[in-house]
Amino acid sequence: MESAAAAAATMAAEPLALPALLLIRRVDGAPFAAALRQRFRVLDFFASGSPPLPAFLAAAAVVMGGGPSRVDAECLDALPSLRCVVSTAAGLDHIDLHQCARRGVAVANSGRVYSADVADHAVCMLIDVLRRVTASERFVRRGLWALQGDLCLGSKLGGKRVGIIGLGNIDILVVACALNKETRHIVNKDVLEALGKDGVVINVGRGANVDEAEMVRALKEGRIAGAGLDVFEDEPNVPPELLAMDNNVVLTPHVVVLTFDVGVQVRSA
Amino acid sequence: MESAAAAAATMAAEPLALPALLLIRRVDGAPFAAALRQRFRVLDFFASGSPPLPAFLAAAAVVMGGGPSRVDAECLDALPSLRCVVSTAAGLDHIDLHQCARRGVAVANSGRVYSADVADHAVCMLIDVLRRVTASERFVRRGLWALQGDLCLGSKLGGKRVGIIGLGNIDILVVACALNKETRHIVNKDVLEALGKDGVVINVGRGANVDEAEMVRALKEGRIAGAGLDVFEDEPNVPPELLAMDNNVVLTPHVVVLTFDVGVQVRSA
Repeated sequence: MESAAAAAATMAAEPLALPALLLIRRVDGAPFAAALRQRFRVLDFFASGSPPLPAFLAAAAVVMGGGPSRVDAECLDALPSLRCVVSTAAGLDHIDLHQCARRGVAVANSGRVYSADVADHAVCMLIDVLRRVTASERFVRRGLWALQGDLCLGSKLGGKRVGIIGLGNIDILVVACALNKETRHIVNKDVLEALGKDGVVINVGRGANVDEAEMVRALKEGRIAGAGLDVFEDEPNVPPELLAMDNNVVLTPHVVVLTFDVGVQVRSA
Repeated sequence: MESAAAAAATMAAEPLALPALLLIRRVDGAPFAAALRQRFRVLDFFASGSPPLPAFLAAAAVVMGGGPSRVDAECLDALPSLRCVVSTAAGLDHIDLHQCARRGVAVANSGRVYSADVADHAVCMLIDVLRRVTASERFVRRGLWALQGDLCLGSKLGGKRVGIIGLGNIDILVVACALNKETRHIVNKDVLEALGKDGVVINVGRGANVDEAEMVRALKEGRIAGAGLDVFEDEPNVPPELLAMDNNVVLTPHVVVLTFDVGVQVRSA
């Protein structure tokens, strides 16, 4: 609650007048849950006395997801009062946009709330791959400082060209686009070939934006220089070939948006 | 060689007119060695027929070091013709500046040649510590993606205040100063206390700029939040307590200036 006036306004509001929200993702953090309760009547199956499931679902005007649960035709059929689907993720690839449009269901994503965090993580992975930070970190932790040799020798950042898909003649390709039919495997064998043996792929979008098998082959054969990857085609499974690469890939577990400050941000939004 | 004219000039020069250079560090890379031979007569003990050592050392007008070999009074006594000491490192803590000044021996360091690389690595470690990049990377490589939980939850970069020694009220303290009597343990218990429980130390200077034992204690007791360290007080020995910290410290083996592009830079300088 931001102020006494806001608190009074919330108290005065008839709870039933708030839109009914069905959560299909886990909500961590008390501030986030409290912020939702201020704005929505959050549906709770057990607190409602475990009513017949169709009746329970029929109340939902808003669905909030973002995790692995898909919002597809079957899901939409079960939610006849649905007006809006909110994704807490930036990506909408788990939502059938065509089916939502056909039924007049609005769709919203996280907007730009994660943009700075994603960019920070991408920049970190970019420097890391070039300068072999996690690679040389492993040497220290394994007690192999003295043996580091050329494996810790990175490449300068200065003078490198960072690009996005569609621009030619670059050294580092940052993938940060949505996943849809047009962008699935948009980084394919041809793009990797064009990137070349000194090229680096940074993927903070979706795993399937990149043809992972082709990228693994290109890395193994030295046709590209390295990769910083937060997303993978079949999460949480990471190709074992990538795990075996010790000094030119940085692999993080889809954490590019995760910070413990998010709760605070939601509360004050 | 940059051009035919430069090549001709070099060929015409009388080799003995070039200053005699004694290397007391290993020189890696053919371009660097070639650049030295263009500008100096590089003394070679074995190629000179293993002369008496005092006579061999007496020829040296320039000494190039930067590794662990100290240039102290005893070393200077053995080099009566010495005019200049060149450190390939940014740091001069292995050179006795007072003794050099007393004997009229000039001292030079690497200048700003590493500045951008050091800054890049410092920025990477800074984001890494806050966003737990190497920490979450370890989860992926250990096959523990699903168990990551809060250990991969980093802190936002936005809004954090980065500072240097002497400025108060900061979140991240970057240590990038020379090591001398005034700066030994300049980051002591009081500074760590002032930095506080959300504070992060990034050290790309020298290990002894920080009271390492106090920093380890502050990290263990949660009195500071994390550290990104490329340098340590007793390299290559890293305190085992730091190695045991799994998600708030990033430890690299004094590689902050190492890139494989350096040779190219020296050649074209």
